[in-house]
Amino acid sequence: MKAIKIGIIGAGRIGKIHADNLLRLPQTEIVAVSDLFAGPDLEAWAAQRGIGIVTKSSQDIIDNPDIDAIFICSSTDTHVPLIKQAALAGKHIFCEKPISMELAQTEGALDVVRQAGVKLQVGFNRRFDHNFKRVRECVLDGTIGDAHIVKITSRDPNPPHEDYIKVSGGIFMDMMIHDFDMARYLSGSEVEEVYAHGNVLINPVFAQHGDVDTAIVTLKFKNGALGVIDNSRQAVYGYDQRVEVFGSKGSSAATNDHPNTVEISTADSVRRDKPLHFFLERYNEAYIEETKMFIECILHDKPVPVDGYDGVQAERIALAAKLSSRLGRPVRLSELPELVRQSAQATTESA
Amino acid sequence: MKAIKIGIIGAGRIGKIHADNLLRLPQTEIVAVSDLFAGPDLEAWAAQRGIGIVTKSSQDIIDNPDIDAIFICSSTDTHVPLIKQAALAGKHIFCEKPISMELAQTEGALDVVRQAGVKLQVGFNRRFDHNFKRVRECVLDGTIGDAHIVKITSRDPNPPHEDYIKVSGGIFMDMMIHDFDMARYLSGSEVEEVYAHGNVLINPVFAQHGDVDTAIVTLKFKNGALGVIDNSRQAVYGYDQRVEVFGSKGSSAATNDHPNTVEISTADSVRRDKPLHFFLERYNEAYIEETKMFIECILHDKPVPVDGYDGVQAERIALAAKLSSRLGRPVRLSELPELVRQSAQATTESA
Amino acid sequence: MKAIKIGIIGAGRIGKIHADNLLRLPQTEIVAVSDLFAGPDLEAWAAQRGIGIVTKSSQDIIDNPDIDAIFICSSTDTHVPLIKQAALAGKHIFCEKPISMELAQTEGALDVVRQAGVKLQVGFNRRFDHNFKRVRECVLDGTIGDAHIVKITSRDPNPPHEDYIKVSGGIFMDMMIHDFDMARYLSGSEVEEVYAHGNVLINPVFAQHGDVDTAIVTLKFKNGALGVIDNSRQAVYGYDQRVEVFGSKGSSAATNDHPNTVEISTADSVRRDKPLHFFLERYNEAYIEETKMFIECILHDKPVPVDGYDGVQAERIALAAKLSSRLGRPVRLSELPELVRQSAQATTESA
Amino acid sequence: MKAIKIGIIGAGRIGKIHADNLLRLPQTEIVAVSDLFAGPDLEAWAAQRGIGIVTKSSQDIIDNPDIDAIFICSSTDTHVPLIKQAALAGKHIFCEKPISMELAQTEGALDVVRQAGVKLQVGFNRRFDHNFKRVRECVLDGTIGDAHIVKITSRDPNPPHEDYIKVSGGIFMDMMIHDFDMARYLSGSEVEEVYAHGNVLINPVFAQHGDVDTAIVTLKFKNGALGVIDNSRQAVYGYDQRVEVFGSKGSSAATNDHPNTVEISTADSVRRDKPLHFFLERYNEAYIEETKMFIECILHDKPVPVDGYDGVQAERIALAAKLSSRLGRPVRLSELPELVRQSAQATTESA
Repeated sequence: MKAIKIGIIGAGRIGKIHADNLLRLPQTEIVAVSDLFAGPDLEAWAAQRGIGIVTKSSQDIIDNPDIDAIFICSSTDTHVPLIKQAALAGKHIFCEKPISMELAQTEGALDVVRQAGVKLQVGFNRRFDHNFKRVRECVLDGTIGDAHIVKITSRDPNPPHEDYIKVSGGIFMDMMIHDFDMARYLSGSEVEEVYAHGNVLINPVFAQHGDVDTAIVTLKFKNGALGVIDNSRQAVYGYDQRVEVFGSKGSSAATNDHPNTVEISTADSVRRDKPLHFFLERYNEAYIEETKMFIECILHDKPVPVDGYDGVQAERIALAAKLSSRLGRPVRLSELPELVRQSAQATTESA
Repeated sequence: MKAIKIGIIGAGRIGKIHADNLLRLPQTEIVAVSDLFAGPDLEAWAAQRGIGIVTKSSQDIIDNPDIDAIFICSSTDTHVPLIKQAALAGKHIFCEKPISMELAQTEGALDVVRQAGVKLQVGFNRRFDHNFKRVRECVLDGTIGDAHIVKITSRDPNPPHEDYIKVSGGIFMDMMIHDFDMARYLSGSEVEEVYAHGNVLINPVFAQHGDVDTAIVTLKFKNGALGVIDNSRQAVYGYDQRVEVFGSKGSSAATNDHPNTVEISTADSVRRDKPLHFFLERYNEAYIEETKMFIECILHDKPVPVDGYDGVQAERIALAAKLSSRLGRPVRLSELPELVRQSAQATTESA
Repeated sequence: MKAIKIGIIGAGRIGKIHADNLLRLPQTEIVAVSDLFAGPDLEAWAAQRGIGIVTKSSQDIIDNPDIDAIFICSSTDTHVPLIKQAALAGKHIFCEKPISMELAQTEGALDVVRQAGVKLQVGFNRRFDHNFKRVRECVLDGTIGDAHIVKITSRDPNPPHEDYIKVSGGIFMDMMIHDFDMARYLSGSEVEEVYAHGNVLINPVFAQHGDVDTAIVTLKFKNGALGVIDNSRQAVYGYDQRVEVFGSKGSSAATNDHPNTVEISTADSVRRDKPLHFFLERYNEAYIEETKMFIECILHDKPVPVDGYDGVQAERIALAAKLSSRLGRPVRLSELPELVRQSAQATTESA
Repeated sequence: MKAIKIGIIGAGRIGKIHADNLLRLPQTEIVAVSDLFAGPDLEAWAAQRGIGIVTKSSQDIIDNPDIDAIFICSSTDTHVPLIKQAALAGKHIFCEKPISMELAQTEGALDVVRQAGVKLQVGFNRRFDHNFKRVRECVLDGTIGDAHIVKITSRDPNPPHEDYIKVSGGIFMDMMIHDFDMARYLSGSEVEEVYAHGNVLINPVFAQHGDVDTAIVTLKFKNGALGVIDNSRQAVYGYDQRVEVFGSKGSSAATNDHPNTVEISTADSVRRDKPLHFFLERYNEAYIEETKMFIECILHDKPVPVDGYDGVQAERIALAAKLSSRLGRPVRLSELPELVRQSAQATTESA
């Protein structure tokens, strides 16, 4: 079988992770990598990995006829144009989440993908996590009956730098979007309504950029289930990633992963080490798994496990949460077109 | 020191529990017990415990000049008149929760108590639970810093009988009221706003009585913290009672109590026995502790640990949750007087 | 039904615990208590509990015709004569462990008990513990198949005072005797051989009295199972009481009880409070249960759950362990008569 | 820096694992692989991994001047001659455990290694396990004070095939040897005496080959600590790998690793998935780590983390355990030369 040839656009932290994971897959070859800031460091990095082409221009990746699939790991604002170009060039696409922060933009990109007939997988890596997959299994195989309540806790060990806060799109679009996808994944149902309330409790810098650092969002699902997600930008004890689905026949709950199972008992307490520090440690295997699945779907022409539809649904929920938080009331997803229209109008009028 | 003489009004399950717990306290003597359905069974029960007087009339208890303190364990609709009578008769009062289902009624009863200068303790027994006390301690002693997120899970093993559902006052006033008190207790802050959404997922009988069986309520606290409570009338694995307070310096979380610590590993799984079955098993020690504290407060003339103010606050939150659920929008507690007025008006007009 | 009338000999810590537990049982009445050091304090204690007779003389208890059953809670050296006297006086007997430190003495006392036809229960309270009962259940009901390995960990939070070490009979007879009984209870089999090795690692005072403070004993059971017990006189993190039975179909393991289930996560670690401090906290319910069972066995003339045979078996294993430790080789229980004879001879010769 | 060139002797399960792990290391190149049963399958396997040479002859590996280091993954009886040849050829050596089953043979091989000045690492992979490293850290950094008790549980999910039992060298040399190394590693002390008792409880086939399937071994360490190891050839719930060190200031205990953290609560029980199935799953990371360390020690000319001395010590303890089990008495390691001499003599005389 012919190897899948890969180009990577964006060689930041996440681009490099995908690269290293792709290198472990037998039927994959990374042909080229592009980054706006490509230089000797990136060249050395690429050389060590046998990646022949290093370039500053994403266009070089898209135009390269050898390349079968492109990993878009550049900043969010570049996703839509790159997806469109890659799709038009007939490349399969793996794109980091979110596709964009404007629903209409995202949907536009997906239209192009659909017409081009290429595969697009969105980087919701948590779907490939050993714990969350097991909880989902309990829902799918009927172990816990019909889902009644879905609870997701997701807290980062440290807030991001202010530079990032400015462009992040806010806690709902940047951080909780993973949990919105998880809510759909775990419940097996679509979200109909959200009520979001957030606050600035950690650092006033979030308020300066119109963002919050602590938030709780409640969800109503189409199948009648209720959900709640809580996010914090700073859990001093480390990355807190737990989910629970409670149903008519029981409950399935995933707690945190720790670096070891050791319990230390002293005159003070019985203690263990903190959870795995952050997403690189915690979702290491999940990142490997998602690239593996993407490559397999290309090799065997199967539908990808997280597609554009999943990407757009998570964005719709995030947008609804953002609006709910601003309006101080629950927002139904069916209201989105009207609310977006009003919001656009308001922006125009105030201009 | 003279023994505190006690009269008990209402000898159902909870009245009998309080009686047995009081019998363990050295400086307490149960003088009389009243119950609408008093008969040979209750007389035998009382005789075994050396309780001299058994009567059908609560008035006999209130009028008995020997009695120092009264435990009101009769149905909720009798609480307000009994509190008033007991207070006017100069008796200290322990009253089961909720005081009543009408805020104005509750407040009226508390006015009489205040003027009479007697003590009134409300039966929020969970404040005396070993787990929840320890979580609160972590908040009070600064271990976890400022509270940011409060999470409470409270699920019953079985739904109540339809006869009870009819008169229960609904999930918010009957079941979640304990959690509303817990939210105030754990956060050390007052609730300002609630958003409640519930659904009927377990048994349609709840809908027939205008009630829900599954509910999630989000809370905003005065100190900026956010909260969420989830309730279910049926957790097939047993009584699920967990709380978590997440703060600026860490998190303190209580999981369930189990009847033993035994882990059984077989070819199928690693398992343990289900949590303690229901409130009698789970809060056994807490019930003992709350009566002990009440007696001590009388003996040493100290303020009771859960007073009428606590009772009324929990009822206000429950009422706001009920209205939020009905109106489909967040409700601020400050709106209550206006909403109650409107509701009264609507009832009058529709009459 | 007539109440069982009780006399208590020895009003130290354990005697008082049994008294308070007996007071909770409806069909029991404590008539008298004796203690060598009886004085105003004990009189006050007894008065509060409605115990009419306080005396310095155990004879007063034994001679009292009203008394049905006697709790022997005095020092170990008094057990044998008191058991004999009580049995001859026709009283049922509850005796603290060990019956004595001389096997022949213990057997002599049991002969008298047998001839008198009274009941004798030995104070192996751990058999009534919720955790250990559950493990035993897994053995009895076949959940874990045939027992292959039995592991018992038993460590005290603090070493006893030197005054106690002198007269304790040594770690095997004083402390590990509980675990020897537990080994028989959990495995459902008799012990055939022991190999004990101990060391003085905590405090040289143990060596001064020919004792050790840390010990591991391996066991061979009649049914082929193997066992191991480890003891330490000082676990700084508190009372460590765990057991595990591993069998052909699985394993059943009890970990420690903690005062609460709270997990506290901070920047340093994830921790919980230490286990319940010592035997009074840890075996509180087990003490209640053992007295309840004893009273029930008298009331309904049933065989007691831990009888003289159980007492003597534990002592035999303890003696074998002591000899094994001294001889530096495994000792079979069948060797005991010969070894005891040799030991007596050696003592005589050296005298 | 020049890549380390590797030859692998023995391409069974463990040889292939080492190969795959070596392929992940940047400065390593596998040049050749030999296996008695080399054929098309192995050639395909090697081709996929870019390994140029596949041979039936270990001599080809040893004679290959390009090769810097050899992994000896063939059957135990070949270890000693291969180590000697490799050492004389100036190759660094990684050898699977045990080096041999005859102490004198092992020591002979180590002499040659020493004279040749090459590195020899023994495959005690568990030293590189995340859990056990953490427990050792607690001993080394003083967290738990002086070690008093070391407990190791090691149970396999399934007994090996009879073909393997015949040549395994017995439970002490084949299976418990890992635990003997762990005992030294965790305690930081040498073993002075062992007492082993084993039994055949799982399958009579073990008895037919003079072996046992269940064993408990107690240890005395030079520093005064006591230890106990329990082994079973069949834990139906999976691979059971736990250790605990108890010391003067506390305890550090590692429980099993599970494939996920999910807790499933149903009407029956609260359960989780069984531990990671067997050594390949459980020690996956440890295998990677040990090869990484070996390569680093060659690259930077550092002493290997588990050397020949460690290998021989574990074998001495295993031999003492085997003799203890046969003689039915504790055996001091200092007795070994004499016991081996007697045993040889007995064999000669009976011949």
